[in-house]
Amino acid sequence: MSDPNGRSDHAFPEAQREGLYRAIFERRDVRSQFRPDPIPPEVLARLLEAAHHAPSVGFMQPWDFLLIDSREVRERVHDIFERENARAAEAHSGERGALYRRLKLEGILESPLNLCITCDRERGGEHVLGRQSIVEMDLFSTCLAVQNLWLAARAEGIGVGWVSILDQQDLAEVLGLPAHVYPLAYLCLGYVDDFLDGPELARAGWRQRLPLADRVHGNGWQAPPADAALTRAVDALAPRQ
Amino acid sequence: MSDPNGRSDHAFPEAQREGLYRAIFERRDVRSQFRPDPIPPEVLARLLEAAHHAPSVGFMQPWDFLLIDSREVRERVHDIFERENARAAEAHSGERGALYRRLKLEGILESPLNLCITCDRERGGEHVLGRQSIVEMDLFSTCLAVQNLWLAARAEGIGVGWVSILDQQDLAEVLGLPAHVYPLAYLCLGYVDDFLDGPELARAGWRQRLPLADRVHGNGWQAPPADAALTRAVDALAPRQ
Repeated sequence: MSDPNGRSDHAFPEAQREGLYRAIFERRDVRSQFRPDPIPPEVLARLLEAAHHAPSVGFMQPWDFLLIDSREVRERVHDIFERENARAAEAHSGERGALYRRLKLEGILESPLNLCITCDRERGGEHVLGRQSIVEMDLFSTCLAVQNLWLAARAEGIGVGWVSILDQQDLAEVLGLPAHVYPLAYLCLGYVDDFLDGPELARAGWRQRLPLADRVHGNGWQAPPADAALTRAVDALAPRQ
Repeated sequence: MSDPNGRSDHAFPEAQREGLYRAIFERRDVRSQFRPDPIPPEVLARLLEAAHHAPSVGFMQPWDFLLIDSREVRERVHDIFERENARAAEAHSGERGALYRRLKLEGILESPLNLCITCDRERGGEHVLGRQSIVEMDLFSTCLAVQNLWLAARAEGIGVGWVSILDQQDLAEVLGLPAHVYPLAYLCLGYVDDFLDGPELARAGWRQRLPLADRVHGNGWQAPPADAALTRAVDALAPRQ
């Protein structure tokens, strides 16, 4: 890119930028396409390193990574899922309920590896820089690590699914977590037969992607963006699933 | 990559993978190096699209994007920061307190654009698929959108800084947010003179990166990973800042 203001001195070359955007747009929440092949240790190490390089409030790095390959532990986690999912299914009745029950919502036993990313709520002591106003900033930081790992996995050809239908207390007990360590994300990882070309919930007719233009505001809630050129640029984006 | 198990059918070509890892490892929380040049609308649209393609629980897409370029609004937000920061500084005394006061912790007025990413806690109705067990999953989803944007910005040569030293209630008032919309991330965006080669808090001696090997566990808290080859692979990672 040539820019008279030298704006893009630090921009990546085209292929590198493409790689990042591809990971973002082709990443999926995978529940069904797992293959049994194990993830080689070198690849897994890269994924963990990517997660570990997320930003964190006060550089507190509150995360830990628990790699769960034991069949027994996974069966106990799967039991927690089954209980919670039965409870959750009750919230949806009629056609919507029937659709809910048809959806596959986890791959705990089918994927070759489960990974729990936790948040140590006490790491860095009582006063973590930048965390006085919003005490949840440690949880938010841990989420950023999850997304780094998710994108890196996509680039490596590995699928990731986040199982959120779990009782956190029960999960903490199975994993032997101390009281100050919160099991933030329970992920299923593995190579996959394919990555779907759109989110599974959209394909199943559960919910569709919202138009981005409706989600962009200006200097206050529901104020239009000050620059009308932005609205045009959003409208001009290539359609994606 | 050739693999007898065909594991990597879906892996990206080298340059694309490199682009993603580069964004992950070279991304910074920027507070000081902002240039005044505006971000072109096409580039900004790409960043918002990247955020909008984050995963979200039940595909609820709870985020909204408020683009804040008004000087007046930013001055009001800056006032909130100043109040909160004075309060936070009191937690650190002695040498640590002196260091705290020397740190630059935001770029609200210097960056050409502020962006508030909010979380609509009611989007998708009362029963969002996958959110029954962990009601905060909507906030966590919004964090994943923040990280997508942060990485995309890095690839475009744009710096991002997250200002977490803000009273959320005061911020919501300035932005006119309804009660069910939570201002999750207040970000400063802009082209930068340079990206530092390590986190600013590490360079300033506030806190250093933790060894990744210490953060990796096996099938339970503080159990060693079942596969010793993983420990070796983690130890073999190239040193990074």
